[in-house]
Amino acid sequence: MLSLSTTDVPSRAPVSAVTFASGARALHIVDQTRLPGALVELALTTLPEMVEAIQSLRVRGAPAIGVAGAIALAVLAERAALENPATFHAEIASAAAALRAARPTAVNLAWAVDRVFEAGQGGGGDATPATRARAMRDEATAIFEDDVAMCAHIGAHGATLLRPGMTVLTHCNAGALATAGIGTALAPIYTMHARGDGIRVFANETRPLLQGARLTAWELERAGVPVTLLTDGMAASVMRSGAIDAVLVGADRITANGDVANKIGTYAVAVLARHHGIPFYVLAPTSTLDPQTPNGGSIHIEMRDADEVRSLAGVATAPRGVTVHNPAFDVTPASLVTAIITDQGVFHPPFHFAS
Amino acid sequence: MLSLSTTDVPSRAPVSAVTFASGARALHIVDQTRLPGALVELALTTLPEMVEAIQSLRVRGAPAIGVAGAIALAVLAERAALENPATFHAEIASAAAALRAARPTAVNLAWAVDRVFEAGQGGGGDATPATRARAMRDEATAIFEDDVAMCAHIGAHGATLLRPGMTVLTHCNAGALATAGIGTALAPIYTMHARGDGIRVFANETRPLLQGARLTAWELERAGVPVTLLTDGMAASVMRSGAIDAVLVGADRITANGDVANKIGTYAVAVLARHHGIPFYVLAPTSTLDPQTPNGGSIHIEMRDADEVRSLAGVATAPRGVTVHNPAFDVTPASLVTAIITDQGVFHPPFHFAS
Repeated sequence: MLSLSTTDVPSRAPVSAVTFASGARALHIVDQTRLPGALVELALTTLPEMVEAIQSLRVRGAPAIGVAGAIALAVLAERAALENPATFHAEIASAAAALRAARPTAVNLAWAVDRVFEAGQGGGGDATPATRARAMRDEATAIFEDDVAMCAHIGAHGATLLRPGMTVLTHCNAGALATAGIGTALAPIYTMHARGDGIRVFANETRPLLQGARLTAWELERAGVPVTLLTDGMAASVMRSGAIDAVLVGADRITANGDVANKIGTYAVAVLARHHGIPFYVLAPTSTLDPQTPNGGSIHIEMRDADEVRSLAGVATAPRGVTVHNPAFDVTPASLVTAIITDQGVFHPPFHFAS
Repeated sequence: MLSLSTTDVPSRAPVSAVTFASGARALHIVDQTRLPGALVELALTTLPEMVEAIQSLRVRGAPAIGVAGAIALAVLAERAALENPATFHAEIASAAAALRAARPTAVNLAWAVDRVFEAGQGGGGDATPATRARAMRDEATAIFEDDVAMCAHIGAHGATLLRPGMTVLTHCNAGALATAGIGTALAPIYTMHARGDGIRVFANETRPLLQGARLTAWELERAGVPVTLLTDGMAASVMRSGAIDAVLVGADRITANGDVANKIGTYAVAVLARHHGIPFYVLAPTSTLDPQTPNGGSIHIEMRDADEVRSLAGVATAPRGVTVHNPAFDVTPASLVTAIITDQGVFHPPFHFAS
């Protein structure tokens, strides 16, 4: 069924959503709206370009959005310090506000933008714009490097749960394209692949927005990891055939008791994994833990536009006005989760995440 | 979540795949390749038109294909008897062969075409082409009427398992558009709807070919049955919410022990139904029973073209060459089936279908 082996395809480094070279004067992102058709890297230098890129999902994935917002503000601050030092304060304040508002529900974005903004407020009243901009760049660099390290740690911890030659199933995209590093759910796969521990992946296409088909299949194939694409209804029969050794998924939020909010369809995969006796692993940064929320029952589930289900790339696939149920996320109860892997380690049930 | 009630939308009779009025001189079908955009009814009078309609899935669904093949041959025989009596035998023999070959794996098609062809072979050597054509028309009429009656019986038996006000989930299209009558899996829904026993439906879109979105949602909405469209990964969380009282699906083949081969994704729905304690009903004509095959383990699963998964409505949705697993069907083990409903009644486990 899997026609690729690791020797058929040259291994290339995973393509991350955001890169940040020392001395860069722009926000460098992969334009994810162009995938899988073309790999287009954008160098964004103005606030309107940066806001547009975040709003139109050219950069997506909670960790990647945070890093992009941090770098964006640092890059703008450096230019303001150089070109318009007199209006530096007003300019970075309004840039920070615009970046935060680009995706108001992305908590990582506001958090990262605020961190960089605050870094520019220190040093007393006599600090020059250039000094402030340097502090902001240092902060953005730290956020970027922390994200890369977070991914590497999740990869190392997650790899302890897998064995060479295993085949895993994933849903949606929690890969390099969602981070500045090697991803979250896909991090152990890249870690093992880099070691030569042949690992194979089945990727659910993940309707309605097809992140699995457009992004996960693309990034794994490009990195030389053998990947087979499935529609979401096919995973069950592949599990029944015995071909899947483990499920790896990301998370948008993990509550104190270990309930997991993630892309719609994740809960179905968890039920199917349990029925077939397959371990179900959730991999996410520590920042995803939400100890203030006791369990998944109180998570608000965003309902999205019906046309995401009624059409694809502008082509109608259903009767025009038909009623649609289109939740962005579902909640997988902790009872179906075999382990939660963060950058800090592997957590087994019963889960009790405290602040 | 369901915004339609039975009083909001005028109730119309279900739209069947094939109609056959007394005296009709053409094969009348709904062109299903035009749905859900437009309801186009075709009156086909020539063999090439009929073969093309079957091959390009303008008419689909095992029962409907059989009825269409039967009517096609009868209509052609009547014209041959009228216009070319001297070449009648050669003409209907070659028409029968061409119709059978239009979809070689559709056993219903060969069976129905053979029945009509054989009906034209009786009456001794002195029977006129006109007499033979009349016998063939009578046979096609019987096949058509049997299909309509089969659907009605499944509807009546299936309705005994449901209660007014229930909400059911279905997968793929086993509706009026798959038959000459009111469908198989959807028959109890139409039966109850016609009685005013308000019943509501969630329809899985059914990737990769979207029969649920294009056909099931369309035919239910047009008949005034409240329907909500889901992507296949959403059904699990809707079940968890308690909104689904029963699952109704069709079948392509049912083996002696009650294992069910049906559209890919059906098995996932069965596992999810079991996990949530929801009854899982399979509705199909007696002709679907295959007592010669002991269980689902020996059913050959057709693998279909990778581009069905790599694209949607002609739009690429995945990397061009990515490996795809695209089985047309899956097998649901009898242990997950609550009851099997045929035109002959309701069967409960343990299932033992004998020839």
